[in-house]
Amino acid sequence: MLRSCTAGLRSLWALRGRREGAARLSADLQPARRLFSTEKAVHKDWALPNPSWSKDLKLLFDQFMKKCEDGSWERLPSCKHTCTYKSEDFKTYFLDPQLVEGEGLSQAQLFTRGFEDGLGFEYVIFNNNDEKRTVCLFQGGPYLQGIPGFLHGGAIATMIDVAFGSCAAISGGAVMTANLNINFKRPVPLCSVLVIHSQLDKLEGRKLFVSCNVRSVDEKTLYSEATGLFIKLDPKKSST
Amino acid sequence: MLRSCTAGLRSLWALRGRREGAARLSADLQPARRLFSTEKAVHKDWALPNPSWSKDLKLLFDQFMKKCEDGSWERLPSCKHTCTYKSEDFKTYFLDPQLVEGEGLSQAQLFTRGFEDGLGFEYVIFNNNDEKRTVCLFQGGPYLQGIPGFLHGGAIATMIDVAFGSCAAISGGAVMTANLNINFKRPVPLCSVLVIHSQLDKLEGRKLFVSCNVRSVDEKTLYSEATGLFIKLDPKKSST
Repeated sequence: MLRSCTAGLRSLWALRGRREGAARLSADLQPARRLFSTEKAVHKDWALPNPSWSKDLKLLFDQFMKKCEDGSWERLPSCKHTCTYKSEDFKTYFLDPQLVEGEGLSQAQLFTRGFEDGLGFEYVIFNNNDEKRTVCLFQGGPYLQGIPGFLHGGAIATMIDVAFGSCAAISGGAVMTANLNINFKRPVPLCSVLVIHSQLDKLEGRKLFVSCNVRSVDEKTLYSEATGLFIKLDPKKSST
Repeated sequence: MLRSCTAGLRSLWALRGRREGAARLSADLQPARRLFSTEKAVHKDWALPNPSWSKDLKLLFDQFMKKCEDGSWERLPSCKHTCTYKSEDFKTYFLDPQLVEGEGLSQAQLFTRGFEDGLGFEYVIFNNNDEKRTVCLFQGGPYLQGIPGFLHGGAIATMIDVAFGSCAAISGGAVMTANLNINFKRPVPLCSVLVIHSQLDKLEGRKLFVSCNVRSVDEKTLYSEATGLFIKLDPKKSST
């Protein structure tokens, strides 16, 4: 049975949050001790420009925000600490209360939002619901280095997983990554901006098939292509 | 042409360093301004126990260190700033001098070694040269969270890429990831220890085919399986 974890749920919660009120959309800025607590969270949406964003990233962001004006596209907010959602749906599937209360987990934070501004993953995802596709604008910071001067393959795989997760969650609700298959075509220069176009290709029962390509800002350079398989979670079944 | 970046070169450099002297094996502990400079680096090997290592990880580490005593296995050292190697081989392939001297890159550090002790990727890789396989012992810290209480799929993909890179570099020298295909079977609890067994399956011209499985400490739980394709770099050709 395929039931691996992914950033898909993060995106799902973002989507749900959008419908259920702004207070559930974003992150707790306070230290990690706030996680899993019932304290009122201080919210922040991380999928917005900050001073570390390059001119290219800001320009693309503005272009997509324009596309949002007629409702065909929408920007997906993003949080830092998924745990603040206290997702009951998710607990049904996986969560061991002892694990949640464990010492190490008091510091838990979302992998892609744990870096200082500009050093790690800077990204925003836009969703076109009618076309079942998303566009992720991503700037990979200097802490994501693989070979000197270039992004680590794992950082690219991470962003593809995040982009896929959002795309699958639009149609699938609570989903999880079952497979990632990535072809790396060219090395990506560190600190450059990438555009990840993801598409829902097929929905077959609880299986969602997605694909993407990773391109340069001017779309001329193809850096990677990938496919993904996501599985809708079935609330009636536990995956652990 | 397949020529994406990977952690493989890091591992390659570790392997080379082992042959060429300890001074080239490990990392620069000083701030990032030291990168790309000619200053003498302060070296540290990050693939050694630190206080954040769990009992399980330390136990496994000790077991593999025992296996190293007869020379059948060897521990691969690990660095934080690949750039301190100033790899001329690599520059031949990809590096744009302007890029290397760019502002953002002055802070560059290896993705998997950029976290404080215990918060991110804690790992060590052991190599069995005769059997063409490696074992990576990995503890995923709280900053690698995906869904609450579990490791991010991208963090798992990253460690698989690192483990594959080491395995391929043993036979291939300078290699790069061309493909990663990962099946996620079960979510991995945050802060748990994983054992990644990688194997070189086939060498076909410049192509190296590798596979791995990701298991729990007691080997009873299979979390992920993956295959990878790596390409040997050809010093006579530029990939950019």
